[in-house]
Amino acid sequence: MSKQGLTAGLAEAVRTSQPEHSVDAIHEAKKGLLDFTAASFAGREDKGIQKLLRLIEDEGGRPLVPVIGQGKKAAPLQSAMLNGFIAHALDFDDVHSDVRGHPSAVIVPALIASAARGHDERLLGAYVVGVEVMARLGESIGSRHYEKGWHNTGTLGAIAAACAVGYAEELTQEELEKAIGFAATQSAGMRVQFGTEMKPLHAGLAAQAGLLAVKLAQSEFGGSRTALDGETGFFSLYGDVEKAQHTLLNDWGAPWRIVQPGLWFKIYPFCSAAHHAADAVRQLISEETISAANTERIEVIFPPGGDAALTERSPKAGEEGRFSVEYVIALALHGHGLTVEHFSSQPIPNGVQTTMGRIQRVYDNAIQPAPHAVPKGRFTIVRAYLSDGRICEARVDCPKGAPGNELSEEDIIEKLTLTVPQEKARRIITAVEKADIKEFLAHIE
Amino acid sequence: MSKQGLTAGLAEAVRTSQPEHSVDAIHEAKKGLLDFTAASFAGREDKGIQKLLRLIEDEGGRPLVPVIGQGKKAAPLQSAMLNGFIAHALDFDDVHSDVRGHPSAVIVPALIASAARGHDERLLGAYVVGVEVMARLGESIGSRHYEKGWHNTGTLGAIAAACAVGYAEELTQEELEKAIGFAATQSAGMRVQFGTEMKPLHAGLAAQAGLLAVKLAQSEFGGSRTALDGETGFFSLYGDVEKAQHTLLNDWGAPWRIVQPGLWFKIYPFCSAAHHAADAVRQLISEETISAANTERIEVIFPPGGDAALTERSPKAGEEGRFSVEYVIALALHGHGLTVEHFSSQPIPNGVQTTMGRIQRVYDNAIQPAPHAVPKGRFTIVRAYLSDGRICEARVDCPKGAPGNELSEEDIIEKLTLTVPQEKARRIITAVEKADIKEFLAHIE
Repeated sequence: MSKQGLTAGLAEAVRTSQPEHSVDAIHEAKKGLLDFTAASFAGREDKGIQKLLRLIEDEGGRPLVPVIGQGKKAAPLQSAMLNGFIAHALDFDDVHSDVRGHPSAVIVPALIASAARGHDERLLGAYVVGVEVMARLGESIGSRHYEKGWHNTGTLGAIAAACAVGYAEELTQEELEKAIGFAATQSAGMRVQFGTEMKPLHAGLAAQAGLLAVKLAQSEFGGSRTALDGETGFFSLYGDVEKAQHTLLNDWGAPWRIVQPGLWFKIYPFCSAAHHAADAVRQLISEETISAANTERIEVIFPPGGDAALTERSPKAGEEGRFSVEYVIALALHGHGLTVEHFSSQPIPNGVQTTMGRIQRVYDNAIQPAPHAVPKGRFTIVRAYLSDGRICEARVDCPKGAPGNELSEEDIIEKLTLTVPQEKARRIITAVEKADIKEFLAHIE
Repeated sequence: MSKQGLTAGLAEAVRTSQPEHSVDAIHEAKKGLLDFTAASFAGREDKGIQKLLRLIEDEGGRPLVPVIGQGKKAAPLQSAMLNGFIAHALDFDDVHSDVRGHPSAVIVPALIASAARGHDERLLGAYVVGVEVMARLGESIGSRHYEKGWHNTGTLGAIAAACAVGYAEELTQEELEKAIGFAATQSAGMRVQFGTEMKPLHAGLAAQAGLLAVKLAQSEFGGSRTALDGETGFFSLYGDVEKAQHTLLNDWGAPWRIVQPGLWFKIYPFCSAAHHAADAVRQLISEETISAANTERIEVIFPPGGDAALTERSPKAGEEGRFSVEYVIALALHGHGLTVEHFSSQPIPNGVQTTMGRIQRVYDNAIQPAPHAVPKGRFTIVRAYLSDGRICEARVDCPKGAPGNELSEEDIIEKLTLTVPQEKARRIITAVEKADIKEFLAHIE
């Protein structure tokens, strides 16, 4: 670490980044943009969107930026809030293990607002830079930050979004230092809001705060140029400034964090802690032809605490089923796809509920996690006891979509076409492939 | 403390408050509203306002709420941000010792936006409730909060503004609990921004966040109803939940904190740490007829650390002079009023600069602070060595405007008429006296 402070160092690293030189990084950014779009379209009928749109009607504003999947536009800051919410509404958007949160749902909405105002040329590179910043903030802030009660998507997102937009709009060193400070001083978001509509709105508010930070800096608004540094700066206040000194800027972009460890793209619209079990039961269905009809009971085996996020054991509606491994397995055993329509407010049919009652969670600390497990230390085994006396099982350590078991471009395109009309999807895919962001914006509205 | 949580308890205390029954509280609220207006008009030419107005032009929005002293209106959330900034731009607005920050610059802008949308009937009572909440949050959050680097105006203001608007708009218990949570999860603001334009914007952003919190709750947006409570709740995360259990709700409104200790209204547009010296030098000028011409040198005596906020010893422009006791004393010795026009970006004349060079700071820890000192432990002695050999001095423990040495209604009216045209001031004063908020709003634009 040179004598340059963290704020100045981060601003310089962002400003002098050359992500466009990395074919891999730009390729991952394109995949990320398509997955972001797929997750957003999947959530486009979420009830919260209408509530936010009504609220914004009272404000009014110039309709300049597309609101994804809503057939309308909103003012720039409003669009950042709305699109952040839409992207994260179903928890179907990407996560990143360094962030312990959702980078794209914050960074991309801020960049869309910037691009719609003419700054579209550097969007993909800016997205790479934004993920780099957010991953490094996540690593630097330390695990205590999340454990104490902060929601990293909210608290780290504003700075990441400011840096991404700052790169896209080619801020000067001074502007970028101030924008980082303007974002830092708006950093907020508490985990007590998990499980409510406010959780996805954290992504939207962080996107809005990051965009506002850049606009303030561009208008020569006065602000601190060292907000991350010192005894009362961002890292001291929210985390650990000593740790940050060593991790924030070390080996910047080598490799880019969007490539290594990379974004985790979800193939299912429910909590990632149930993804291992989903992969396992689908494997048993296809290889052992198990079904609700021929299966007497199921054991789902976790390491102790591995199911902490799966808070629902007997959900009544698909919405609650997002946090239920029992529902996910039963749904698959009844031959349903693990798709968005089954995780809405619809009640769960009796047949599926009966099958859920035959599924039992088991904890086994004697089983060794695999070295390639994602997240670290996690596994899930689904063991089926069949009516004919057979017992069969499947173990998953790294679910489909997680780093190490990445989705192919085709998988992501399939995710997009599940929720976007065929012709629209084709145009979006072509626009992203050609890095034609104007064309991309024209089709996501 | 009953078994009811802090969030539910605060919501209930707010909802069932009857501030209108206290003649004193409503009287203080009227004084507060006039002082808020005076401070805002005094700051109406601050350069930051134009920067923010340009930024908001790009957003657009329905012009529904007056922007103070600008001859225009803005959309509700925008107006809260703008008016908060304007009120706090010069640091000429009130402070409150329990808050360790600026209550009215956050609470009143949020209430003005609410009143302009038809909720004007309960504005004065809502202002009393807002100050009550912010004072109690300040006491409950503990002094470590500020010391660690948080700016209380920002971090406590959003919840106070949400409660004030929630009272004005008569939210239900559930709506108010959620609004408190929506505000808490947006709470931010770092002291590293002190001395920059971002500091007053913290007031505006907190006002906006509080107003948004109420709008979300009214639109049935889903959120935590216990955001202040528990191991990862607001008090644990930002302060000390144990302390809050004992102080947040105890003896609510008895007396109202707007009455006791009351708001500190500033008579000078500069840092309150120089107010003692300003009173003292003015006393010497009027009683001992000292002046720049007949005074050889001046000692300004503080308790050790009593001048920590007065960071400028040889300012070059009036703006920096807001934080300079030397400038304040020299200005008075040259026969100038301690008024807004001398604390702008204008350069300081040579004569005044020469006099500043004859003023020396002294620290004396042998002098006992007075029991009625405000802030606690503070005093300032101005000692003048005259050309004719005389030595005279004046000591101030509790400056004019501070609790214990309150401004009269006439003083506040004088402050208003200094910055508002005579006829407009008269109409504003009459409207506030009659509690006619519609009329008040019609004249502050």
